[in-house]
Amino acid sequence: MVVKVAINGYGTIGKRVADAVSWQDDMKVAGVVKTRPTYECLTAIQKGYKIYAATSDKIQSFKDAGFDVAGSAMDLFNEADIIVDCTPGKKKEGGTTGEDYKKIYEQIGKPAIFQGGEKHKLTGLSFNAYANYEKCIGAKYVRVVSCNTTGLLRTLVPLHRKIGIEGVKAVLVRRATDPNDSKKGPINAIQPEIKVPSHHGPDVQSVMPDIKISTMAVVVPTTIMHLHNVMITLKKEASADEVIAAWKDAPRVILVNSKHGFESTAQLMEYAKDLGRPRGDLYEIPIWQDGVSVVGKELYYTQAVHQESDVVPENIDAIRAMMNLESDKMKSIEKTNRALKIIK
Amino acid sequence: MVVKVAINGYGTIGKRVADAVSWQDDMKVAGVVKTRPTYECLTAIQKGYKIYAATSDKIQSFKDAGFDVAGSAMDLFNEADIIVDCTPGKKKEGGTTGEDYKKIYEQIGKPAIFQGGEKHKLTGLSFNAYANYEKCIGAKYVRVVSCNTTGLLRTLVPLHRKIGIEGVKAVLVRRATDPNDSKKGPINAIQPEIKVPSHHGPDVQSVMPDIKISTMAVVVPTTIMHLHNVMITLKKEASADEVIAAWKDAPRVILVNSKHGFESTAQLMEYAKDLGRPRGDLYEIPIWQDGVSVVGKELYYTQAVHQESDVVPENIDAIRAMMNLESDKMKSIEKTNRALKIIK
Amino acid sequence: MVVKVAINGYGTIGKRVADAVSWQDDMKVAGVVKTRPTYECLTAIQKGYKIYAATSDKIQSFKDAGFDVAGSAMDLFNEADIIVDCTPGKKKEGGTTGEDYKKIYEQIGKPAIFQGGEKHKLTGLSFNAYANYEKCIGAKYVRVVSCNTTGLLRTLVPLHRKIGIEGVKAVLVRRATDPNDSKKGPINAIQPEIKVPSHHGPDVQSVMPDIKISTMAVVVPTTIMHLHNVMITLKKEASADEVIAAWKDAPRVILVNSKHGFESTAQLMEYAKDLGRPRGDLYEIPIWQDGVSVVGKELYYTQAVHQESDVVPENIDAIRAMMNLESDKMKSIEKTNRALKIIK
Amino acid sequence: MVVKVAINGYGTIGKRVADAVSWQDDMKVAGVVKTRPTYECLTAIQKGYKIYAATSDKIQSFKDAGFDVAGSAMDLFNEADIIVDCTPGKKKEGGTTGEDYKKIYEQIGKPAIFQGGEKHKLTGLSFNAYANYEKCIGAKYVRVVSCNTTGLLRTLVPLHRKIGIEGVKAVLVRRATDPNDSKKGPINAIQPEIKVPSHHGPDVQSVMPDIKISTMAVVVPTTIMHLHNVMITLKKEASADEVIAAWKDAPRVILVNSKHGFESTAQLMEYAKDLGRPRGDLYEIPIWQDGVSVVGKELYYTQAVHQESDVVPENIDAIRAMMNLESDKMKSIEKTNRALKIIK
Repeated sequence: MVVKVAINGYGTIGKRVADAVSWQDDMKVAGVVKTRPTYECLTAIQKGYKIYAATSDKIQSFKDAGFDVAGSAMDLFNEADIIVDCTPGKKKEGGTTGEDYKKIYEQIGKPAIFQGGEKHKLTGLSFNAYANYEKCIGAKYVRVVSCNTTGLLRTLVPLHRKIGIEGVKAVLVRRATDPNDSKKGPINAIQPEIKVPSHHGPDVQSVMPDIKISTMAVVVPTTIMHLHNVMITLKKEASADEVIAAWKDAPRVILVNSKHGFESTAQLMEYAKDLGRPRGDLYEIPIWQDGVSVVGKELYYTQAVHQESDVVPENIDAIRAMMNLESDKMKSIEKTNRALKIIK
Repeated sequence: MVVKVAINGYGTIGKRVADAVSWQDDMKVAGVVKTRPTYECLTAIQKGYKIYAATSDKIQSFKDAGFDVAGSAMDLFNEADIIVDCTPGKKKEGGTTGEDYKKIYEQIGKPAIFQGGEKHKLTGLSFNAYANYEKCIGAKYVRVVSCNTTGLLRTLVPLHRKIGIEGVKAVLVRRATDPNDSKKGPINAIQPEIKVPSHHGPDVQSVMPDIKISTMAVVVPTTIMHLHNVMITLKKEASADEVIAAWKDAPRVILVNSKHGFESTAQLMEYAKDLGRPRGDLYEIPIWQDGVSVVGKELYYTQAVHQESDVVPENIDAIRAMMNLESDKMKSIEKTNRALKIIK
Repeated sequence: MVVKVAINGYGTIGKRVADAVSWQDDMKVAGVVKTRPTYECLTAIQKGYKIYAATSDKIQSFKDAGFDVAGSAMDLFNEADIIVDCTPGKKKEGGTTGEDYKKIYEQIGKPAIFQGGEKHKLTGLSFNAYANYEKCIGAKYVRVVSCNTTGLLRTLVPLHRKIGIEGVKAVLVRRATDPNDSKKGPINAIQPEIKVPSHHGPDVQSVMPDIKISTMAVVVPTTIMHLHNVMITLKKEASADEVIAAWKDAPRVILVNSKHGFESTAQLMEYAKDLGRPRGDLYEIPIWQDGVSVVGKELYYTQAVHQESDVVPENIDAIRAMMNLESDKMKSIEKTNRALKIIK
Repeated sequence: MVVKVAINGYGTIGKRVADAVSWQDDMKVAGVVKTRPTYECLTAIQKGYKIYAATSDKIQSFKDAGFDVAGSAMDLFNEADIIVDCTPGKKKEGGTTGEDYKKIYEQIGKPAIFQGGEKHKLTGLSFNAYANYEKCIGAKYVRVVSCNTTGLLRTLVPLHRKIGIEGVKAVLVRRATDPNDSKKGPINAIQPEIKVPSHHGPDVQSVMPDIKISTMAVVVPTTIMHLHNVMITLKKEASADEVIAAWKDAPRVILVNSKHGFESTAQLMEYAKDLGRPRGDLYEIPIWQDGVSVVGKELYYTQAVHQESDVVPENIDAIRAMMNLESDKMKSIEKTNRALKIIK
């Protein structure tokens, strides 16, 4: 069976999920939903993705712009086996929210994946492949957690399982907007999240309730990668080598070294380009190996998160779990990794 | 007695200390040392500061540029009662280091203040007015700690004295360079300090050895203000109101509220301009009042540091302590505050 | 007679005009209109400016925030002799436009100054002190042209009068937003004005119809100063020295030299701070003297514009012209310059 | 014959030229020269490129870092048929300049291509495929002009040939540094090139002496793409449609429309990623079609230049010309374009 996947929303995440689906042998892109006839249509058509307008009344605007449209979103949803909802979290254009869309998916009885911009309670089930793949097998509605939460889970779960975490304090230094945006700032300011601890800690717990974590966050004027400063009290003393060993087996976590010239997020992104990654994506979470330090039970490390792409393989695994394509977590992860040329 | 103060180095800190000295009634500017005949000379002359070339062989270059020079640095040092060394920390232009200069000051028997770019061991005595003014009364060589360390001490010391601190974890999000520089980056990257915990924790302890603190730091592409994410385990449970009360009496700490539009460092800097501050300086450490949160014994808050100016009043107090102009810490702080129009 | 000036809108321009008015001896601030109870109220009150809410129904929100309000905008307008409208150009908060406000001012028979965000046709009379002060004497409605247009007029008019301009081509590299904003971008992109030639050329002609000029414009991720690349075909050959001489007599134009360390807009802004200017403002238009070049009749030069402040002295002169406080253009300019400590 | 190409310098340009060579069927990568064992080695090895240390004494440092080295640069030069010198223009690490390297290439009798950082006089022959491919057939030393000059030639040459150019004035708004760098600024400043007219005009004339052009340039805080504001006096009146038609046939020039969401350089770079381009490169020069405007004989338009990649296909064509692989300019261009998947 080749699962037919509808992509609702063809923005930063949606177009990456579409490509990733197209690289698998057990699923394919049924079509993509767009709200406006922008330049992304040019390349979507080249790739052979059928474009569906978000609503019927928008079809004409696509035709006016010279883009063929296969129908409206409802046409696509009806044809698909599963929908990956990549619409923006808070307020969709035209006013449709994740909750509104969920009702539509339920009405036509189609399973759906939501992204981390939605709240946990929308699905009651939040997903990270390595953390809780099993719990989502056959599930109808699943939320793939946000890029930041995914990044934290990737490095915390192996530590928690192999060494044990007493408590985590993390400060997230967030890029302000994605590279394709030129409207949002700030240009020359640091903007703290006033509400502390921030929502990121509870979001980690939506997948791993037994990890004690509190977080703070700031926004800074960059477009590439979040950076996490992680400070952990371990359950027992461990050397930096033991900590690093815990990550060596963990999927989608890589180690980089400042001695090789990795001084900032700039060189990490360049490395992803050098790897030949489509769109220069870095699906893995890089940790600075020479920045891992343990003092007694206190562990300090720094990791980066490519906000545009780290959740993409998780979406593929979530499809596989929900559609019963693979029951073994590690087999799905490895299959996805091979298709996306993920290092490990 | 009006103390004659020499300012060695007329950059970001030096020119501010010069102005602050000129606003006091118990000290005055004997002259300022510059290494190159740049535009700062234009306004130094207007303000009536005598300019001294760093070395005799540079005097001609100032004359060539049309600037009157009163002599070389040594001429000024000999005339002054105390030297405030504001030369850059690591490597001075022409290769002179803080250590080199200290030998010169010792040879001519003149007391001197160094800045936070120097190491604690240079003087063995690190200064923050509210924390340890008394220890520096009559001292010959004192280091005023850096902008970041000053910022941390301002808010930690009152908490430690009134409530008690078990341990501090702080992440410093640092501006990459000052507003008057156009050479340094990054432009679009976040750069972590690879060595963790960072040196800022031990630097706090150079003034307050009994505060347990560890820190991490990142550099971001802004020119205005550092931002500190502070996470404290208190010795006992306390409400947010009790925490805020501890800061209400503390000098050079102010509370701001996001509801008034303080969303980022941008509005803090605008507020300082609106206050009519020379150069738009904000000597005080602002804490977001509505961002103070306590969960059990765990306290979270966010503060900002105007890297160009928060150490300026500390330098004035240090002069006063070292030159025995005032034995009562709070009297010196208040006198400085009045002269600099510091809110409290 | 001391003219009572109402400031409608207390943002970037409004608060500067208020301060500038307060520094004159022939006018005073009757009050300022604010739309929301933000941090600017804190310092407006300190300065003794009476605050008026934009509309009566907003008065309570100011009281709730702890700010005294003297009434609503209409109360202020009725009391004032002239209104300086510093409301944002395109769409005011609450939806009031410059046109709407003009009707109100007309109803109560009060003269008013508008800013460059409004179109020329709103008043039919656009103002720059050195260019056309005389035309605005006794006028009821005048528009002070925008910061960019003011900057162009300051350097073009003296050239045109003394040497003669055949045609101007200029490219404006614009800062994206003001330093007090943290919402707008871009962060890492250059954004061209798609419509070429841009509206800046015709705007210059709204004051100086006989200057032939066409312009292009781009927006870049900075918050401080616009930069103009000016390419002029002169009516006759002239040396760089003759060109510079033409500016030496021109008001509010200064010459800077890269050899003194003026490498970019960063050092220009630092210089304004060093000058002791309130808010670090630079009312003058700086031209790089060593960047003035003439090849035959072709003149090339680079100038910068402090977008927050260059129009401020023009507003003062406009008040003086409209209220018949001074009939001699140069006397008004010099009086304003003295009060604002403008170099020349 | 498959030409063996040595790449001297494996930075921004060098690694792109290496990849582009590897995609051709008439040439192959003999090896790449690196000066330091940085992260680029990781992926060079994966791609099968043999790494040569810049000098013999550096070989050990590569071994220490765990990277296999095939020898020193001289070993590679001797083995290759042609060298593409991608060393930095002004000062190479270790102090070797383009002139020094040229002497080495001459000694061993190997042809070489230099990049636009070198001066025209180094080779006396500057290259742009569409402009002067024929002149470089069989040439021994050729300079491929810089990214900015290439960008200007791409759109000027077709206009000049089809409509006729009387004179060009252009202002180049330059990105400050490449995305992989985190050291250089400015962060919040616009930096003009003080020397005007800038060197870019004469550089265009090094390839097309009969185009009259003068330029100005500024540096802004971005890492992606230069933007050119071009103002041309045409030899005769022409409509915008005729101008656009001239570009429709021109190689490596594409037209984009702001109505499709191309608002800034950000969306252009996103489009290149969407196209599936390796490293997200955009070899073509995009012009805003709806920003082309003609007033009489005066033409205005805006184009962007992907500074990292637009010269890459030119290097391939230069190899082909110099090595007599193809005598027909358009055949070489089309062959290169197919291999690089260039739109046209």
